[in-house]
Amino acid sequence: MADASILRTFPNPAPGRGYVIEHTHHEFTSVCPVTGHPDFGTITVRYVAGAKCVELKSLKLYFHAFRNEGIYFEAVTNKICDDLGAALRPRRLTVVSSWRGRGGITSVVTADWKPGRGARA
Amino acid sequence: MADASILRTFPNPAPGRGYVIEHTHHEFTSVCPVTGHPDFGTITVRYVAGAKCVELKSLKLYFHAFRNEGIYFEAVTNKICDDLGAALRPRRLTVVSSWRGRGGITSVVTADWKPGRGARA
Amino acid sequence: MADASILRTFPNPAPGRGYVIEHTHHEFTSVCPVTGHPDFGTITVRYVAGAKCVELKSLKLYFHAFRNEGIYFEAVTNKICDDLGAALRPRRLTVVSSWRGRGGITSVVTADWKPGRGARA
Amino acid sequence: MADASILRTFPNPAPGRGYVIEHTHHEFTSVCPVTGHPDFGTITVRYVAGAKCVELKSLKLYFHAFRNEGIYFEAVTNKICDDLGAALRPRRLTVVSSWRGRGGITSVVTADWKPGRGARA
Amino acid sequence: MADASILRTFPNPAPGRGYVIEHTHHEFTSVCPVTGHPDFGTITVRYVAGAKCVELKSLKLYFHAFRNEGIYFEAVTNKICDDLGAALRPRRLTVVSSWRGRGGITSVVTADWKPGRGARA
Amino acid sequence: MADASILRTFPNPAPGRGYVIEHTHHEFTSVCPVTGHPDFGTITVRYVAGAKCVELKSLKLYFHAFRNEGIYFEAVTNKICDDLGAALRPRRLTVVSSWRGRGGITSVVTADWKPGRGARA
Amino acid sequence: MADASILRTFPNPAPGRGYVIEHTHHEFTSVCPVTGHPDFGTITVRYVAGAKCVELKSLKLYFHAFRNEGIYFEAVTNKICDDLGAALRPRRLTVVSSWRGRGGITSVVTADWKPGRGARA
Amino acid sequence: MADASILRTFPNPAPGRGYVIEHTHHEFTSVCPVTGHPDFGTITVRYVAGAKCVELKSLKLYFHAFRNEGIYFEAVTNKICDDLGAALRPRRLTVVSSWRGRGGITSVVTADWKPGRGARA
Amino acid sequence: MADASILRTFPNPAPGRGYVIEHTHHEFTSVCPVTGHPDFGTITVRYVAGAKCVELKSLKLYFHAFRNEGIYFEAVTNKICDDLGAALRPRRLTVVSSWRGRGGITSVVTADWKPGRGARA
Amino acid sequence: MADASILRTFPNPAPGRGYVIEHTHHEFTSVCPVTGHPDFGTITVRYVAGAKCVELKSLKLYFHAFRNEGIYFEAVTNKICDDLGAALRPRRLTVVSSWRGRGGITSVVTADWKPGRGARA
Repeated sequence: MADASILRTFPNPAPGRGYVIEHTHHEFTSVCPVTGHPDFGTITVRYVAGAKCVELKSLKLYFHAFRNEGIYFEAVTNKICDDLGAALRPRRLTVVSSWRGRGGITSVVTADWKPGRGARA
Repeated sequence: MADASILRTFPNPAPGRGYVIEHTHHEFTSVCPVTGHPDFGTITVRYVAGAKCVELKSLKLYFHAFRNEGIYFEAVTNKICDDLGAALRPRRLTVVSSWRGRGGITSVVTADWKPGRGARA
Repeated sequence: MADASILRTFPNPAPGRGYVIEHTHHEFTSVCPVTGHPDFGTITVRYVAGAKCVELKSLKLYFHAFRNEGIYFEAVTNKICDDLGAALRPRRLTVVSSWRGRGGITSVVTADWKPGRGARA
Repeated sequence: MADASILRTFPNPAPGRGYVIEHTHHEFTSVCPVTGHPDFGTITVRYVAGAKCVELKSLKLYFHAFRNEGIYFEAVTNKICDDLGAALRPRRLTVVSSWRGRGGITSVVTADWKPGRGARA
Repeated sequence: MADASILRTFPNPAPGRGYVIEHTHHEFTSVCPVTGHPDFGTITVRYVAGAKCVELKSLKLYFHAFRNEGIYFEAVTNKICDDLGAALRPRRLTVVSSWRGRGGITSVVTADWKPGRGARA
Repeated sequence: MADASILRTFPNPAPGRGYVIEHTHHEFTSVCPVTGHPDFGTITVRYVAGAKCVELKSLKLYFHAFRNEGIYFEAVTNKICDDLGAALRPRRLTVVSSWRGRGGITSVVTADWKPGRGARA
Repeated sequence: MADASILRTFPNPAPGRGYVIEHTHHEFTSVCPVTGHPDFGTITVRYVAGAKCVELKSLKLYFHAFRNEGIYFEAVTNKICDDLGAALRPRRLTVVSSWRGRGGITSVVTADWKPGRGARA
Repeated sequence: MADASILRTFPNPAPGRGYVIEHTHHEFTSVCPVTGHPDFGTITVRYVAGAKCVELKSLKLYFHAFRNEGIYFEAVTNKICDDLGAALRPRRLTVVSSWRGRGGITSVVTADWKPGRGARA
Repeated sequence: MADASILRTFPNPAPGRGYVIEHTHHEFTSVCPVTGHPDFGTITVRYVAGAKCVELKSLKLYFHAFRNEGIYFEAVTNKICDDLGAALRPRRLTVVSSWRGRGGITSVVTADWKPGRGARA
Repeated sequence: MADASILRTFPNPAPGRGYVIEHTHHEFTSVCPVTGHPDFGTITVRYVAGAKCVELKSLKLYFHAFRNEGIYFEAVTNKICDDLGAALRPRRLTVVSSWRGRGGITSVVTADWKPGRGARA
């Protein structure tokens, strides 16, 4: 499974300004846990940094680690949200996953991270 | 008629987070109840899950079941909204149907589901 | 002149739900009252029904009836708004007309209907 | 210099309704006051009429009158805003100018007119 | 390093109106401080002028001065925001940088300038 | 099965000129003979008429008749080509079917009709 | 019926060069001779002039004259081809009509004019 | 390595007609043999069948089998061409691979198969 | 009138290779000789150089010189073709002018230059 | 100056098949030799390999080496054509450079390489 420990951070160069950073990975792929068929999508990470920013190359490798994992759309979105929330402790964080269709259906899942609130409460 | 009992659900993997799930079916087709001509459209289902998420394959089969039904744009949108509301008991639910034109007119119908409020009151 | 009596209605199938219905006619044409040259545009009607919905074929014929009428952009938009407001008594109604350019100028006119408020007060 | 007296008006056909009128001129051209090179842009005028609407042909001729004037992006936008505000005394008025780039830079200037408030106060 | 002293200003021609000026540079390029590979992006500067507007040619030369500098996406965005804020003392200022992807990831950084508030507090 | 006898013709109004007629049906749907899932596509018919042209409404009804038939992409394209060739005896005829993807694969099949040459020789 | 005598010509300014002139009318409308419903399309006229060029304003008025005529796609294309061929005696002429769809079918008709060869031979 | 024996065929339903079949897989992914990073592309297979057509589901599984293989753009294109040529013995076959860029470079490789001519002669 | 003597040339850097040079001016404007209204278009110049290439800044100034000239689409295209042919003596030259529409008609004029053959023969 | 010795090659994996390889660099930048301003463009290299293929990373570094060189559009296109022709000795080679506009003019230069024929003969 993609391991959150892959993620690297660097100090926020403008901690006094609540600016927004957005990274979009256009080549995300994982595997359907039921059929074993590949899924393809786009993942957008949008956050206001606290003390730390995520380092881009480590983010890419973290995304690559899902390549052969069987995981649902809803679960992968929440896992990325949890992992980045824990690694960055941002002021605000939103994760959007957008999936190419199967059988004529496309999907989008959007999750927000908030400090001190778990996804599975 | 498309039977709501086709819909299958699975437990929401992140019930503590009010995240948004959106599925868009690009190949919806039904039949005009007056002329018998086929109608073609796109159906978007956008919801914040409560305890349950809709399973995608069952959603697709539910949509396919409208293929030879004669039903108006307004009625099909409200029926999908009622059926998914009853099956999922979501925190929020919106259904949008968007129809290819006939005679130069395209149409969009947008309905929200709210707990404890019927469409035909 | 296009006669509002062409418009036909049917009972709202979900009167208990304040959902939005939008019809867009992509082939509207009338005539410039000054030059006699044809005008071409798109008319969007967006409303929340009260007891009645507009029947699509009658809406199309109503729009066709403007074909050889000389009428300004501002006036045609307000007339459609008045006619549909009177025929449907909707909870909310917006009419948007969007016109192909002449002499390098394109135009958009947007009018809202409100119960009990005439356009010419 | 483009003369506001070119602008002609006609009575608002629906004074009791606060509807929005928008005209976009796609072929605006003036001259850079520093280099003498031509500038090309799009001008959008969006307003809620009071008693008067602007007549389209006069608006076109008013825009044409800038063809060989040397004037900055910021100044031309404010002048159009002032001239139309004075001619129409609208309830609301916004002017947006959008300019093709020079040296890889495109520009957009957006100004609102408010009754009783000059641009140069 | 790009020197803020390159920036030239001229007096705001409409100081009494809080209008919005937006310049987008489509050909920004700098160098990745880690790999030395070139980065390419678009920089948008959107502001409400106080007493001064930025002169376009000087803005272009200021952007060109980053061509061979090694600097991170987050840092360059904040530097441009600081430099323009100091030079213009605007009423409002937003800087958006949008970057072509490397390894399948595109990025957008958005920073607001506020009077009397440093980015590194 | 869609019956070629649905097709109606009318006399070519310009038999002395070898001009090209092209009709594209954007709402073709049939059923996969293996899985029973619906297929959606676009059918283009391009021909140089001999003595007869195909009447449009009958062409539409002929296409509608495939709605619930189980038939492969390759077979339906050749059947349409054979049926129109037999009904029109055109100077030239090409049929192109273009199919929305399943499992990430889209398909296009292109067949030409020639007098006196069967498809299954 | 649209009368070819509306067409005006002017002398070809470069008779020694076989250059190509193309005019596309984006707002053609006529009426379906069977249903009486309006048809909308685009007409492209592409020719190599002999001694004469067609004057644009007269071409526009000629096209406008079809507004309330009941005529088939195939017939109107051939009539325009015949009328322009007779009026211009060009070296080469092609007329292409492209029609917005009815019932999900769009159409394109393409005809060439050749000196000394009638369409109805 | 992707095994050509995955490919299944079915008899050409119209062997007497030299029609063209084209399948495009939009979700091809393999791995760069040097860096280990994933590559993403689109594969188009266009052929005129002899006695056999390729079965679509087997073609999809054949493409999926490249998912974790390290292979160059040029090599994968030629291997697909060789494998399909051997399996189908078509009259004509072209394979086009189109690759998302790395480091700002996108690539397209196009190979034709001809009976009796090996790629490595 | 735009004066061909504005055009400057420089020696072809690769006279031994028949390569193609294409310049497209997106901001051409002249004036209608009949109505005095401005015309806007795009001019493409495509040529295989002989001994000389056209210098870009002089080409831009040459195009700017048409700004207030009254001239027909057909005439301006042939004049540019003649002027560039005379100035460059190219191996091949094509000029394409493409015009924004007036009254719903857009136009394209395409002229080729050939050594030793005048346009007005 | 960009040094052709940066280019690396690898053996053509399918020398018996005359297939086409195309690489497009979307982030080319050099400097105008007259004004010193940066130029931005896209370079496409399309070739049929002989014994050797160009290695992609070396091609990228070769393009990067033009970053601060002052060189004309025509000259850079011919230099790339000469350098790749010498390094690869391909069966066929075409280089296309496409440049973002300055002063409203965009440019495209297309050169072919042929064995045994220099560009400056």
